[in-house]
Amino acid sequence: MNAELQSIADVLRRAGERMLSVTHPTVYSKEGHANFVTATDLAVQREIEEALTRLMPGVGFLAEEEEGGELTDRPTFILDPIDGTTNFMRGRRASVISLALAEDREPVLAWICDPYTDRMFTARKDHGAWLDGIPIHVSEVPPEAALIGFGTAPYYEELMPRTAAAVAAVLPVFGDLRRSGSAAIDLTDVACGKLEGMFELLLQPWDYAAGSLLVTEAGGRAGRIGGGAPDYGRACGFVCGTPGVFDKLEETLRRVTLSA
Amino acid sequence: MNAELQSIADVLRRAGERMLSVTHPTVYSKEGHANFVTATDLAVQREIEEALTRLMPGVGFLAEEEEGGELTDRPTFILDPIDGTTNFMRGRRASVISLALAEDREPVLAWICDPYTDRMFTARKDHGAWLDGIPIHVSEVPPEAALIGFGTAPYYEELMPRTAAAVAAVLPVFGDLRRSGSAAIDLTDVACGKLEGMFELLLQPWDYAAGSLLVTEAGGRAGRIGGGAPDYGRACGFVCGTPGVFDKLEETLRRVTLSA
Repeated sequence: MNAELQSIADVLRRAGERMLSVTHPTVYSKEGHANFVTATDLAVQREIEEALTRLMPGVGFLAEEEEGGELTDRPTFILDPIDGTTNFMRGRRASVISLALAEDREPVLAWICDPYTDRMFTARKDHGAWLDGIPIHVSEVPPEAALIGFGTAPYYEELMPRTAAAVAAVLPVFGDLRRSGSAAIDLTDVACGKLEGMFELLLQPWDYAAGSLLVTEAGGRAGRIGGGAPDYGRACGFVCGTPGVFDKLEETLRRVTLSA
Repeated sequence: MNAELQSIADVLRRAGERMLSVTHPTVYSKEGHANFVTATDLAVQREIEEALTRLMPGVGFLAEEEEGGELTDRPTFILDPIDGTTNFMRGRRASVISLALAEDREPVLAWICDPYTDRMFTARKDHGAWLDGIPIHVSEVPPEAALIGFGTAPYYEELMPRTAAAVAAVLPVFGDLRRSGSAAIDLTDVACGKLEGMFELLLQPWDYAAGSLLVTEAGGRAGRIGGGAPDYGRACGFVCGTPGVFDKLEETLRRVTLSA
């Protein structure tokens, strides 16, 4: 299994080099508010899918830039070729490749490749989470000093008032907020102790499948706003955090969701 | 004047090396919600003030970690030794040194030193803005795709509901939000075209004195929420943006401020 982790990490590193080589990507609009895809997202996804199909033929795919993928009980790769597409378009150097291998509809292996900082995060269910092979752990910062990452669910205008209500509810209880523009980056930050939690009111499984395994294997918790485990087959209200922050954050968000 | 820009840039680069050498700073609490200072903020400020006093004796100081500084009509340095102290404490690699030289209560020279990426932003009133000596300009991205940085004024609990109202008002009109945790970094991003605007409902002059000169010399605009030029002697509601974004952003924020 470690050999698989390594050879798949090499596939993502090569795809990351392609990301770095493109400085002015061709941009296409997608449905929704300020929703874009670039030719590089599509090329990176194709390159990774072809390489993974050679390495592990027969494994299914659920990927951001592909129609018709679905999660079944069979082994399935869940892929976001570029998480943080707007950052990528704008030269903000805050975008990563996020890949999970799911079995029985749950991630069992995870890779997040940050080509800008040449870092590779990996996790294996029940075995731990690593940054470049070194074990990582969530922080012990208490709620009142905790930094919480958040997503704005920017493609869904109907959620904007509720996102703002979540900001109002979270700010006085925790230390402060951050917004990187990449859910997968926020999840790596929670896993290695640079944030204490993150949430987004509607997030797709390719945004959190790898990162949530990373967080739980680093000692944190991940779930749905309102309770229960994240759904890895379709979008959900997603929240994660350290053991000291998770319950308080989920309850704060649950109140906002129920009252809106 | 260019020789002055250079020798002062060297002072900041040396202070930035000190920042990089400290991986676990000693942290002190300040008044307010989640407000901290580290021993490194104090040491960096002292080092810079001593060097600047040797280079330009007689110039006054208005600095974050110092009581009794004030802005007068005489030449005054406005200094934030570490903008993004919480990021610095947490190893988030998103903190900068921000320095302006004010004459007649307005910045005429500006330096922002990012030690993590080894970048030096400079600006000179009526002459332009530069990143490592290369001219920089604001973007032409239209409002509906614009990225807006924001601060949460985290030390002032009474402003939190209004900040959340600003988030609710800004999200549907512009592309999306970002929150780095450093106002000065957001200002460099506006100046070099990676954000189209930034705001914070209460911001101190050492946070924006250098960055607002950078933005205006890069072709953007800066002001107070509610109208008028920023006050460089005391805190104000601060907003800046590209020519295509500034008015719309200021009006959106003004409505929130007046209605709250």
